Amino acid sequence: MSTITNDIEIIKTKATKINEVDFDNLKFGSVFSDHMLVCEYKDGKWHTPKIMPYQPLTLDPSSKIFHYGQSVFEGMKAYKDKDKNVWLFRPEDNCKRLNISSKRMAIPEIPEAYFMEGLITLLQLDKDWIPTKEGSSLYIRPFVFASGNGFHASPADEYKFIICTAPSGSYFSGEVKVLIEEKYSRSANGGVGFAKAGGNYAGQFYPTQLAKEKGYQQVIWTDDNKHEYIEEAGAMNIFVRIEDTLVTAPTSDRILDGITRKSIIQLAESENIPVEVRKLTVTEVVEAAKNGTLKEMFGAGTAAVISPISGFGYKGEDYELPKLENSYADYLKKRITDIQTNKAEDPFGWRYKV
Amino acid sequence: MSTITNDIEIIKTKATKINEVDFDNLKFGSVFSDHMLVCEYKDGKWHTPKIMPYQPLTLDPSSKIFHYGQSVFEGMKAYKDKDKNVWLFRPEDNCKRLNISSKRMAIPEIPEAYFMEGLITLLQLDKDWIPTKEGSSLYIRPFVFASGNGFHASPADEYKFIICTAPSGSYFSGEVKVLIEEKYSRSANGGVGFAKAGGNYAGQFYPTQLAKEKGYQQVIWTDDNKHEYIEEAGAMNIFVRIEDTLVTAPTSDRILDGITRKSIIQLAESENIPVEVRKLTVTEVVEAAKNGTLKEMFGAGTAAVISPISGFGYKGEDYELPKLENSYADYLKKRITDIQTNKAEDPFGWRYKV
Repeated sequence: MSTITNDIEIIKTKATKINEVDFDNLKFGSVFSDHMLVCEYKDGKWHTPKIMPYQPLTLDPSSKIFHYGQSVFEGMKAYKDKDKNVWLFRPEDNCKRLNISSKRMAIPEIPEAYFMEGLITLLQLDKDWIPTKEGSSLYIRPFVFASGNGFHASPADEYKFIICTAPSGSYFSGEVKVLIEEKYSRSANGGVGFAKAGGNYAGQFYPTQLAKEKGYQQVIWTDDNKHEYIEEAGAMNIFVRIEDTLVTAPTSDRILDGITRKSIIQLAESENIPVEVRKLTVTEVVEAAKNGTLKEMFGAGTAAVISPISGFGYKGEDYELPKLENSYADYLKKRITDIQTNKAEDPFGWRYKV
Repeated sequence: MSTITNDIEIIKTKATKINEVDFDNLKFGSVFSDHMLVCEYKDGKWHTPKIMPYQPLTLDPSSKIFHYGQSVFEGMKAYKDKDKNVWLFRPEDNCKRLNISSKRMAIPEIPEAYFMEGLITLLQLDKDWIPTKEGSSLYIRPFVFASGNGFHASPADEYKFIICTAPSGSYFSGEVKVLIEEKYSRSANGGVGFAKAGGNYAGQFYPTQLAKEKGYQQVIWTDDNKHEYIEEAGAMNIFVRIEDTLVTAPTSDRILDGITRKSIIQLAESENIPVEVRKLTVTEVVEAAKNGTLKEMFGAGTAAVISPISGFGYKGEDYELPKLENSYADYLKKRITDIQTNKAEDPFGWRYKV
């Protein structure tokens, strides 16, 4: 990695907001640290990032972000251990995926050095914002959007890459019951479902609202053709445990290549938990629920790490999952968060010291 | 329609920019009129619109528009006739469709009175910006986006509805050769393709770039399952003329219910041009090109009205369309623009006097 840090201009805030924050009662992603990183793309290239006080953005009403949804993002977390060391989890993978998403959305790719050194410089500056309470973390949001102007439906000529951070508590609270979707879809073959593109998320809001009105917290997304394959759980990847085997759908152009997902697969395999990465039908899951072989379902993603599912609805029937003493969900969540927070050895080289 | 006009606060610009504009050499949607309409949704309701000088928007970096693509828009045009009367084309249909799009994107629907009276008040104020040169018009861009803050992937609690206008020349120039898409897709069954949602457009940019690198200007979108049905042309609806019959795909949850599309259907039928609204296979179009029965293809949408297609590529083969003396495309474009600009009678009641 080439060094550019010396070139990052830092404009420090004159008045920290840290004393206004109740670190014992943090919500998810709703208070923001003192500084942010801003990197501009214009005249055909990305310019050196700057760090500046967290502040509003000023954009022309014709900026393409408002009209054509040309945006991508990532989600990451920073943790502080008991010795005040700061840790990230597989951050280069976020950088790579951001660029994979950007390519599909016709957004110019960010130099990895700008991403990594910008991120680390920002975290060093705002390290006091990293919460230490169990289950909390500094949520990191890198995002890129079209800031260039004009109503022509074509890629913008200017972009902004920004990293903001938010001290956060846990993403979900309480039981998650899910609805297996029979009508709406998240993504198309040949579409943008594998990208962390903004529009993929807005498209889920309405079907999720409908599911909530029926008493479910999330939607299980199925393929758009016949709704026979299980693909994602809300904005997370999905795992199903049948007997003692963990099953998850293979990544594709419809399914996000989740970093938590692939970490779970690798971790489970290393601990001799049988894992199958294969197409998973709704029929198979419903049958397993009926004959008692369906032991667990859970979502996997950065924000919640692992989010256990207590039951699901399908074609008007509700299926409850058993409450297990030693669930894979609890075990794997503890193993991963212990690695993330430097409470356990990291045989995989996932942890990244800031 | 209830009257709210008296309530719209108008803050006029102190310095018009109209003298800076070269009305004889207008591009599409790149210079903007003096004023814009802004309407805010907060505390659970839409508030009375305001008209103010065209100006930058200020948003928190955590505004959901930057992260989750929660946005919808419309495209409309205003024309001035030789007596300086100002005309719109089916504007209530744009308002209805904006709300159909909003519903799918979990955005609160706009009261029709705010849309219509806001639009008319804005056009009356900026009527000098409506160009009169043949082929030019005042392009109108109503849009709604999530302005509420926070990184939680859920609908925003605040939105902005804005109307900006841009004196514009024609959208396309020159010949349009298209590529029938075999890999990428625009929309999923059960997805958001029927909505004018921002993300639908960004998702098209990369496949369109690839098509441009191969020498085509636009992509013909096909179904995402087997790419066997022809659905849209770039950001337009598509019409194909086989012998003397016009064929266009039926609207669905994948296909936009275009106002130009439905106007063409109604106009053609009233003039005894045979029209078939039915599924159209790629195979049928390729066969018709080979046996000489394929006479025309054209895109239909507000920006370009009708955009004739000169040929298409499919599976590495190029097919040229004949150059016709009396094409449906030219005839229908003239008929519609004559109605839009008050050069011809309007038996359909489409024209709307401002």
